[in-house]
Amino acid sequence: MKTDLTRFLPILKWGQEYNRSALSNDLVAALIVTIMLIPQSLAYALLAGLPPEAGLYASIAPILLYAIFGTSRSLAVGPVAVVSLMTAAALSHIVEQGTMGYAVAALSLAALSGLILLGMGLFRLGFVANFLSHPVISGFITASGIIIAASQIKHILGVNADGHNLLELVISLGQHLSETNWITAIIGILATGFLFWVRKGLKPVLQKMGLSSGITGVLVKTGPVAVVVVTTLAVWGFNLADKGVKIVGEVPQSLPPLTLPSFSPDLLGQLLLPAFLISIIGFVESISVAQTLAAKRRQRIDPDQELIGLGAANIGASLTGGFPVTGGFSRSVVNFDAGAETPAAGAFTAVGLAIAALALTPLIYFLPKATLAATIIVAVLSLVDFSILKRSWNYSKADFSAVLTTILVTLGLGVEAGVSAGVGLSILLHLYRSSKPHIAEVGQVPGTEHYRNILRHDVLTDSSIVTLRVDESLYFANARYLEDKIQNRVADDKNVRHVILQCSAINEIDLSALESLEAINERLKAMDVTLHLSEVKGPVMDRLKAQSFLKEMSGEVFLSQFEAEQKLKAAQH
Amino acid sequence: MKTDLTRFLPILKWGQEYNRSALSNDLVAALIVTIMLIPQSLAYALLAGLPPEAGLYASIAPILLYAIFGTSRSLAVGPVAVVSLMTAAALSHIVEQGTMGYAVAALSLAALSGLILLGMGLFRLGFVANFLSHPVISGFITASGIIIAASQIKHILGVNADGHNLLELVISLGQHLSETNWITAIIGILATGFLFWVRKGLKPVLQKMGLSSGITGVLVKTGPVAVVVVTTLAVWGFNLADKGVKIVGEVPQSLPPLTLPSFSPDLLGQLLLPAFLISIIGFVESISVAQTLAAKRRQRIDPDQELIGLGAANIGASLTGGFPVTGGFSRSVVNFDAGAETPAAGAFTAVGLAIAALALTPLIYFLPKATLAATIIVAVLSLVDFSILKRSWNYSKADFSAVLTTILVTLGLGVEAGVSAGVGLSILLHLYRSSKPHIAEVGQVPGTEHYRNILRHDVLTDSSIVTLRVDESLYFANARYLEDKIQNRVADDKNVRHVILQCSAINEIDLSALESLEAINERLKAMDVTLHLSEVKGPVMDRLKAQSFLKEMSGEVFLSQFEAEQKLKAAQH
Repeated sequence: MKTDLTRFLPILKWGQEYNRSALSNDLVAALIVTIMLIPQSLAYALLAGLPPEAGLYASIAPILLYAIFGTSRSLAVGPVAVVSLMTAAALSHIVEQGTMGYAVAALSLAALSGLILLGMGLFRLGFVANFLSHPVISGFITASGIIIAASQIKHILGVNADGHNLLELVISLGQHLSETNWITAIIGILATGFLFWVRKGLKPVLQKMGLSSGITGVLVKTGPVAVVVVTTLAVWGFNLADKGVKIVGEVPQSLPPLTLPSFSPDLLGQLLLPAFLISIIGFVESISVAQTLAAKRRQRIDPDQELIGLGAANIGASLTGGFPVTGGFSRSVVNFDAGAETPAAGAFTAVGLAIAALALTPLIYFLPKATLAATIIVAVLSLVDFSILKRSWNYSKADFSAVLTTILVTLGLGVEAGVSAGVGLSILLHLYRSSKPHIAEVGQVPGTEHYRNILRHDVLTDSSIVTLRVDESLYFANARYLEDKIQNRVADDKNVRHVILQCSAINEIDLSALESLEAINERLKAMDVTLHLSEVKGPVMDRLKAQSFLKEMSGEVFLSQFEAEQKLKAAQH
Repeated sequence: MKTDLTRFLPILKWGQEYNRSALSNDLVAALIVTIMLIPQSLAYALLAGLPPEAGLYASIAPILLYAIFGTSRSLAVGPVAVVSLMTAAALSHIVEQGTMGYAVAALSLAALSGLILLGMGLFRLGFVANFLSHPVISGFITASGIIIAASQIKHILGVNADGHNLLELVISLGQHLSETNWITAIIGILATGFLFWVRKGLKPVLQKMGLSSGITGVLVKTGPVAVVVVTTLAVWGFNLADKGVKIVGEVPQSLPPLTLPSFSPDLLGQLLLPAFLISIIGFVESISVAQTLAAKRRQRIDPDQELIGLGAANIGASLTGGFPVTGGFSRSVVNFDAGAETPAAGAFTAVGLAIAALALTPLIYFLPKATLAATIIVAVLSLVDFSILKRSWNYSKADFSAVLTTILVTLGLGVEAGVSAGVGLSILLHLYRSSKPHIAEVGQVPGTEHYRNILRHDVLTDSSIVTLRVDESLYFANARYLEDKIQNRVADDKNVRHVILQCSAINEIDLSALESLEAINERLKAMDVTLHLSEVKGPVMDRLKAQSFLKEMSGEVFLSQFEAEQKLKAAQH
């Protein structure tokens, strides 16, 4: 009973071992993460099309709930760039930004996504996420990064522009370019430039000063805080808000409110697909961060329990004025590097953010939106990486076409279409490839008992015996291909008396394939040719033995290919 | 050049070798097939919801076109039961039966289906049909047979009833049962009974009389002709049409008319999915008959060219007043058994049917519809075979659930939903299974160089070395599963220093799997564990060698698993 409980409540396990040293490490990490998260949370709320405080709220309850249910010791859960973009894309099809309905729909999206994650965790359906292949994710994140960066340019320039794919954004920006507010643009461009410099220029300087790479990383990640402070002071000092610089303005001083998502069937119907995609993408992003960090300390991650943790976090977000969340890469790495030992660090971060939401919001009244846009642009451009195109091109054209499709469809039609197209195409390509398996005709390597491809090696063959090796499990998609292949091989060569299928690479034979083997056997019989099998694997043999096929088969099952050919040759003489 | 032409026009090949003996054999076969086809064609037109002459027209041009483009020497192309049912199901959603628009829509459906088949042939997309697994087809044909039989009961009873799935049909029949025309019912029941007796009772009698099984089969297949003659004479002689027995009535005396299908975008949009399903189902039915018959004479079938032949046949049907056609099982077997040697037999059959359409239609004026319904019922009930349920249950639960789903959805929701559900489910199950491949931890069988599953065999292991054998190609759907498996195995056991992946069953590694291997390598490094590979296949190794992974991998690639363990053990001491 107790082991069951710790599986579903990992907090019971690490909570028992908690001690003073872990406490102080966790407190330090929490302080650093809190400082870093304040501007990031505000920025991602902006990206999701929500008021800035929603970003803070979405970081508090979710972190606490993940600390209770999640299995990673270092993952920090909250709003992340790609999921925020997907939230904006999903909602603005349905409700207008800035309305009350929009915020409620965001709650519903988080609730739905939470329920989907929870359901997948309870029914152990985590494998569904595996169908999002690495190349598709890489392409998707790169394209999303470009769209996010493009969507923030309007804030940098202080103009209005809209769109959910690159083309719409570029056209809309072009139409409004003449309305640029130059003071906003100067703030935005300087902030962006400074943040890029912090990443590229400051890091080497700090490292030369002898700071460890962990601390350097943490300092660099707090760069946005400096920009926030400086630009807020500038706007306040020079009254720039009066000159058209858009600012964050009034933010309620409050703990996260209790909220109730709408469950109108109409709304849920429209949000179901986006919620599913957000869940899958968020889960994949989160679990790969969690696995990478866990490996560094030889810890275990349970993917199904992770689904439950993320599901609880999203349901929490939906009940406390938030929006969809997941485990973020940069915040988790900062948390880890700053020395967090247990999920308690996350709980302390939540407390820090709650204090910020309650007490510090008046300080960001004059914070320019251009600054937040700058932090987003710099954060997401580090995700943009076209090298996957070159890499997949070199490795396999199938992978390349999946990546290219994902990138082009995401840029051209938006995030939901992009990820669906990528997943769909990679499944189709996989099915296509496995439907035309590699089938080699093999012969004996002289002086050995090995059999190799007659096209690649100098091998011995017998004109009356054809041996085919199928390099794939046999199932419905390739069963008929094998039928065609054998029939045509034998119909073209009147000398053939025996066909041997070397089954060393066949891990499974499904019922379709069994029926194809039966058809092959019957047809070969009609042509007066005998069918044999060799090197059938144990589990496959177990299944075949329970069927009548082996009795009806005209030939025999041989343990090894060598034995098969020896016996058949001997019988001929 | 010439070989290219004979590929696309198989007639050029057999046409050159044509001689007098083949001619006389083909003429005899054509006569028998023509006699058998007359009632069958009329009946399937009725099933498709079209006037009876459409069945004759659909058997003439298509047979001729298939003779030119098809690769099977014995296949007879024309209306078949399942495709006729699917035609009725597709059209009656859109147009009312009996209207002019219905007949035009049938032409459009045939044209669309022809273009799809032709396109698939030209682009060599025949493999798409492979995704229709044998169990799904068996289930689908069984369920279709039941629906077809149920849909004909109204003609047997002489009542009106409608519906596209079993439930609708049964309810509708129940509502109209009181309107039964008893004379019609007597004719219908007697005809059905007689035809069943011909199949079950007459065959043994004929065989006892010493007739060959081929000739017996042909005689049995002409049973419907006898019923047609007798019941037509009865209706005419006793004036039964005046007593409410529904008859075929006036049928135009004409060669197939030239017709033009409608290409209104609206109609084509609605017909696209049904046309696709009809094409695939028709192709699969046709090719398995063709393969079976070809094997008996050691002949070749080219699936892509078959698509072209069937495509041409359907386009022909659409231009000559027909409806979708394909290679039929019973007519092809009769053709083969009657001694047809070349597709010229088909051409002669077309001539015979043309004469029938031109001259014999007045003779069927008094043919009762109940007789046609009886021939359909007896023909399709022979397709109904529930043994696939038992067989798949014994063989694999995945196959069983695909069959059961296909049968239930076809019966409950109709043919299109049924076949889609079956195909969808079998693809999902396949993806699910391959996403959780069998991964065995292996150890050395004492005294040998073999390595087997530690759970199944008494084997030697070393506490610092873990060897895992993956029994599946590595691709995106199972790459992360392997990551989890390895990480959890190693995180749980602090003694582990080496992980060896035995790759003997891995036929392919895609880019996702390569990136997973890289992640596994990095994570194992972080845990101070070395990753090795053994028994990597040639083509897989070629690909890996072109990448940086093997250089970054912490361990080595060993030719054999035995060598790997020997060397690692030696290095420890």
